[in-house]
Amino acid sequence: MQIDALKTCSDSKARAGQIKTDHGLISTPVFMPVGTAGSVKSLSPDDLIETGSQIILGNTYHLLLRPGMEIMQSAGGLHKFMSWKGPILTDSGGYQVFSLGQMNKISEDGVTFQSRIDGSRHTLSPEISMDIQRVLGSDIVMAFDECTAYPATREVAQKSMDLTHRWEQRSLKYFRSTTPLYGHDQQLFGIVQGSVYPELRKESALALVEMGFDGYAIGGLSVGEPKDDMMAMTDVVTDILPADQPRYLMGVGKPEDLVRAVDLGIDMFDCVLPTRNARHGILFTWDGSVSVKAAREKDVHKPLDSSCSCYTCKNFTRAYLRHLFKANELLVYRLASIHNIHFYHELMTAMRAAIMDDSFSQFKADFFNRYNLKRSEVTV
Amino acid sequence: MQIDALKTCSDSKARAGQIKTDHGLISTPVFMPVGTAGSVKSLSPDDLIETGSQIILGNTYHLLLRPGMEIMQSAGGLHKFMSWKGPILTDSGGYQVFSLGQMNKISEDGVTFQSRIDGSRHTLSPEISMDIQRVLGSDIVMAFDECTAYPATREVAQKSMDLTHRWEQRSLKYFRSTTPLYGHDQQLFGIVQGSVYPELRKESALALVEMGFDGYAIGGLSVGEPKDDMMAMTDVVTDILPADQPRYLMGVGKPEDLVRAVDLGIDMFDCVLPTRNARHGILFTWDGSVSVKAAREKDVHKPLDSSCSCYTCKNFTRAYLRHLFKANELLVYRLASIHNIHFYHELMTAMRAAIMDDSFSQFKADFFNRYNLKRSEVTV
Repeated sequence: MQIDALKTCSDSKARAGQIKTDHGLISTPVFMPVGTAGSVKSLSPDDLIETGSQIILGNTYHLLLRPGMEIMQSAGGLHKFMSWKGPILTDSGGYQVFSLGQMNKISEDGVTFQSRIDGSRHTLSPEISMDIQRVLGSDIVMAFDECTAYPATREVAQKSMDLTHRWEQRSLKYFRSTTPLYGHDQQLFGIVQGSVYPELRKESALALVEMGFDGYAIGGLSVGEPKDDMMAMTDVVTDILPADQPRYLMGVGKPEDLVRAVDLGIDMFDCVLPTRNARHGILFTWDGSVSVKAAREKDVHKPLDSSCSCYTCKNFTRAYLRHLFKANELLVYRLASIHNIHFYHELMTAMRAAIMDDSFSQFKADFFNRYNLKRSEVTV
Repeated sequence: MQIDALKTCSDSKARAGQIKTDHGLISTPVFMPVGTAGSVKSLSPDDLIETGSQIILGNTYHLLLRPGMEIMQSAGGLHKFMSWKGPILTDSGGYQVFSLGQMNKISEDGVTFQSRIDGSRHTLSPEISMDIQRVLGSDIVMAFDECTAYPATREVAQKSMDLTHRWEQRSLKYFRSTTPLYGHDQQLFGIVQGSVYPELRKESALALVEMGFDGYAIGGLSVGEPKDDMMAMTDVVTDILPADQPRYLMGVGKPEDLVRAVDLGIDMFDCVLPTRNARHGILFTWDGSVSVKAAREKDVHKPLDSSCSCYTCKNFTRAYLRHLFKANELLVYRLASIHNIHFYHELMTAMRAAIMDDSFSQFKADFFNRYNLKRSEVTV
């Protein structure tokens, strides 16, 4: 997999490009909304297209437990099951086993864990994860890794990274020995680990590039480490990764994180933040974020952001959104999610335009001049 | 208010017509989705239009308690507040005071009750209800009545009906002495009471017609009485109501109830059933209803009804809908509501077409031949 039509900047590592998949072209930098259990929470495929979504993410762990791979295969894969015609990236399931799984047992072979839904026991290994992602039929498949917990000593981080490398090598070998099930192509991304240790991150990036994946992700960040560490690790890794292949910073992040990471040469992002915050009434604007449930909004008969072109801002007022939240009306979770996902895509579009114009550094300065970081620290 | 372009049948009291409002023309018979608290649960105004909704209902009781009339007036009324450009009918608030209110105290003047949200005390009277509905700015305003509880002795029913008549006379007098707030016209409907006593229903209908309203509703049915009583009372009343004015059967009902009541000359209906059932996975088809949460649907990769043209049936399978219900995914409440509201509107459209064609009796026979009543008895 190549990143095509690459445009770079004179005073930043930021880059804009295109990624081709059998389900369509993706313009980068790109944000991928998270459709955990076969649905980007509260949004329909039409909503996703309307907000500007180009590619969405599905979670192997959740889909394995429910509806399960038998139903997924008889449906003809995740695209058909959820009626999403664009590209899909699936994770390997490893991260959720560690963060959500109960009684998980790790060995050289893989991980066994218990379903939090019905208590049933499951196993994930590099080979099983590849098989599952073949059944899901995602356009981009992630190698099976161990997400190193934070904090980790250098020794623990090294050991975890070494295991990840062996698992990724097995993922790659097995993936290349199997074929897609539904007639469209699938690409495999490797994941760089190494915790907050620059030398480990370098070693990991070099090892993965040596293996030769279709694209590269940076994992194990946004797990509690300081923001400066997240950015330092990203900086180290993007210096090593091949310029002509896609780079994906997993699980990131807030709007300001996206701007910083694009500046460091990242092409792809995913995060539950815009949808999760939306469901809690925290809506993003270019000035920071707004808690639309606040009492001060009760008689503000104006859109959240009158310059915003999303369905929500074009049709509804802050007073109405607040009322819907207070009355627990289901509609508001969708309206708020539409706004936040639209905002994230607008942010990526603006960054792409700045890169094409070789004015990204100016864009970044303007963004941080206007954006109120303190307000965006309202998280849930 | 007239019902225009009236088409009647040779062997049924069924009729088709048009009602003009300043927010648009309504083709009858019509079903009105219920937007209790300023939102038809889970649906956006665009969804409502897409499913074929012509007019929606708002509940005075709920809107009075939240967001309250100060916010509603500063918003410029309910249409603007919820961004619904079509006609709105509001109830008088009386029914909910009796069914939901705590510590309500009834007198000749009206009713005082306590908010179930914050415990605050409120009063509703004919005059206050008219004032509130002026603030809401609904196209069709309902007179303030007492919904007679079921069962009621003849004496209790008579007493309640007499009070209703005095309240409706006051509603009419006060309404005619006030003017709309937002530049569009408002019409006032009277409500026939009389429980399950034909003589009382006749007396009530005659009394209201004598007062002279813009349209007439039949209230106090669908409150627990046998279906045959509901239909018998409707039959008695529609024989008396003026042919050239709209007739509205409040709070009804199931698909089969709508077919029976249209046969008796009813033009307008409202009910929470299609949206409430949808949220519980009970979806309507021409064959009856389907519980899409059932295990048997888990691998049915076909639409709920392949002949249905709603967004849900055009894009999603039963297996996917079941999965979303099992995973508590918010999207499914909207998808299910879209289907049920669309089905109700299709049913009304089919009845209208049959009336225009003078084949309503045949339509009714065909409907009941196909429709499985037992299945539709699945209620929640």
